[in-house]
Amino acid sequence: MVRTASVARGAVDDKGQLMMFVEALRAWTQAGGGIPAPVTAVLEGEEEIGSPNLEPFLVANRDTLEADFALISDTGMWNIDTPGITTRLRGMCNCEITVKGPSLDLHSGLFGGSALNPVNALTRILGDLHDEQGRVRIPGFYDAVREVSPEQQAQWQALGFDEDAFLSGIGLSSASGERGVPALQRLWARPTADINGIWGGYTGVGSKTIIPSEASAKISFRLVPDQDPREIFEGFQRFVADRLPRGAQVSYQAFGMSPGIEIATDTPWVLAARDALQEEYARPAVMMGSGGSIPVVDQIKRTLDIDSLLMGFGLDDDQIHSPNEKFEMQCFHRGTRSHALLLGKLAARA
Amino acid sequence: MVRTASVARGAVDDKGQLMMFVEALRAWTQAGGGIPAPVTAVLEGEEEIGSPNLEPFLVANRDTLEADFALISDTGMWNIDTPGITTRLRGMCNCEITVKGPSLDLHSGLFGGSALNPVNALTRILGDLHDEQGRVRIPGFYDAVREVSPEQQAQWQALGFDEDAFLSGIGLSSASGERGVPALQRLWARPTADINGIWGGYTGVGSKTIIPSEASAKISFRLVPDQDPREIFEGFQRFVADRLPRGAQVSYQAFGMSPGIEIATDTPWVLAARDALQEEYARPAVMMGSGGSIPVVDQIKRTLDIDSLLMGFGLDDDQIHSPNEKFEMQCFHRGTRSHALLLGKLAARA
Repeated sequence: MVRTASVARGAVDDKGQLMMFVEALRAWTQAGGGIPAPVTAVLEGEEEIGSPNLEPFLVANRDTLEADFALISDTGMWNIDTPGITTRLRGMCNCEITVKGPSLDLHSGLFGGSALNPVNALTRILGDLHDEQGRVRIPGFYDAVREVSPEQQAQWQALGFDEDAFLSGIGLSSASGERGVPALQRLWARPTADINGIWGGYTGVGSKTIIPSEASAKISFRLVPDQDPREIFEGFQRFVADRLPRGAQVSYQAFGMSPGIEIATDTPWVLAARDALQEEYARPAVMMGSGGSIPVVDQIKRTLDIDSLLMGFGLDDDQIHSPNEKFEMQCFHRGTRSHALLLGKLAARA
Repeated sequence: MVRTASVARGAVDDKGQLMMFVEALRAWTQAGGGIPAPVTAVLEGEEEIGSPNLEPFLVANRDTLEADFALISDTGMWNIDTPGITTRLRGMCNCEITVKGPSLDLHSGLFGGSALNPVNALTRILGDLHDEQGRVRIPGFYDAVREVSPEQQAQWQALGFDEDAFLSGIGLSSASGERGVPALQRLWARPTADINGIWGGYTGVGSKTIIPSEASAKISFRLVPDQDPREIFEGFQRFVADRLPRGAQVSYQAFGMSPGIEIATDTPWVLAARDALQEEYARPAVMMGSGGSIPVVDQIKRTLDIDSLLMGFGLDDDQIHSPNEKFEMQCFHRGTRSHALLLGKLAARA
């Protein structure tokens, strides 16, 4: 008997997992004679603020939640006709930095040339985050990064990923990131540093010629397995300290920290999912990586000591984390059937 | 007869000129037997948006406004006990830049490592504005900058400006700007590049791990005589173009453009002002520079062909362009008396 813990999370980008799973259970109850495999459902709605209450809940309910694996539907398909099972996730080190200079906004004429400008300072620091090759300059940043094996590289190469098409859908004509690294490797197996937001000084209409008193930015590092998010955060702080001009003060706020993850592909539940997806889509599921982070996968591993099965139905053009986010209806329907089929395959393997 | 055009501007930092001048006229009317010298008053309230309507007005009313000089009180004193006449102003090139990348905000996990991040790009460009010596890196930026004469340097040196005290009042412990350049020269006679504001991506509470679709900044260059604001703006655009990553788009908005100014000190009105200030303060006025810009001085010169007399009563700690801006009451009262005395001195010289 394979016991499934289905972890549905209520965030906007949970890919309709709750509804797909409920519909799959209803199908078995109404048409199939009952749910064929034991299932425990966990719902949480705090993913986008870092799931602060999930881990204490998992620890407190460890016995109730006992299962062989956790089923999570928060990932994507290869394309709308080709299903995917995600076996790699990037981790995250997510923080905010504030650089302070003068105690108040200053007239940029009367003080310019003498007073420290924290926006100038912050752009100078963050503008130095990448070298000419697109590599992150933080000392030691790549030390723990696992090289992708030649076999894995060959598999990804064989997928024929069209980066130009991927980017043209979002209005970009050329790729960024590390020079000379293949696209899927950059997206799935290499760490990044992205400024998610920046602000400081006057940002309204027209001009206001001030030297602002402070400037801030939000930065997320996407990490790969074996990089330690805390060490990356400390490395970033040292990187900043090395570049902080005299008289400036810096402070930080840490948000989510989660490691990159690789999931075994030879488990009964992954095999059951491959069978289910093959039946629904009449083609094999692609064993995919994802550049995103699903911190609960690590939390579940640490607290319940089980792996997650990441069977998701998102598409590249879903506009995740952007206005007008969507979940394709076709993906919802076929995803629901795939979930129902998965329960049957799990029962068959039990 | 010295004809005075008193130009009072209604912006928040006009240093109470209108009230000081009205009180000075009232004093002569009520106690002195009438206003002793012919005066034309001009009021405008658009300085902080670049005075778009002043120049057409000056041109249209050139005959009515005929005068020997323009009296403007928008500058500072040397200190609260020592008056100043400002004879140098920095000019300004003031603009906004926007860098666009993807057509929408992206999930920084799913696209990070492939999609251009315009906040990364903008910080990289603007972070390169200054070299290690604090000099602006725009090619040709210093080509037209006049060297300060040894005599002028010696005069400024003799003023004994205490930069540490100047900065400690605004919470800074050390000076910024060009290395090896004396403080008053940096403030009065050298150009600068200050980012007045920057924004892009998610700037609210907590985190949102996006690659933003665009990022913007407002930048003001303070200029010195002979630098052409339009050429500086073009140089900045070339500087950006040289550093713009592939796939990024850039656009600009130009705000105020005004040249740096040096005013003759041997005119009858400057001499009259020195006499008036000497009488009120019982010490000589310091012939000062200012790092600020008063674009109407250039507009008045070009349209009416007259110089301005900059007799101001502001202090370094007035928090100009910042919350809780003030104008010291003592400066207001003594400034009013100085204006009344100036009218008498002008009449005496007539």
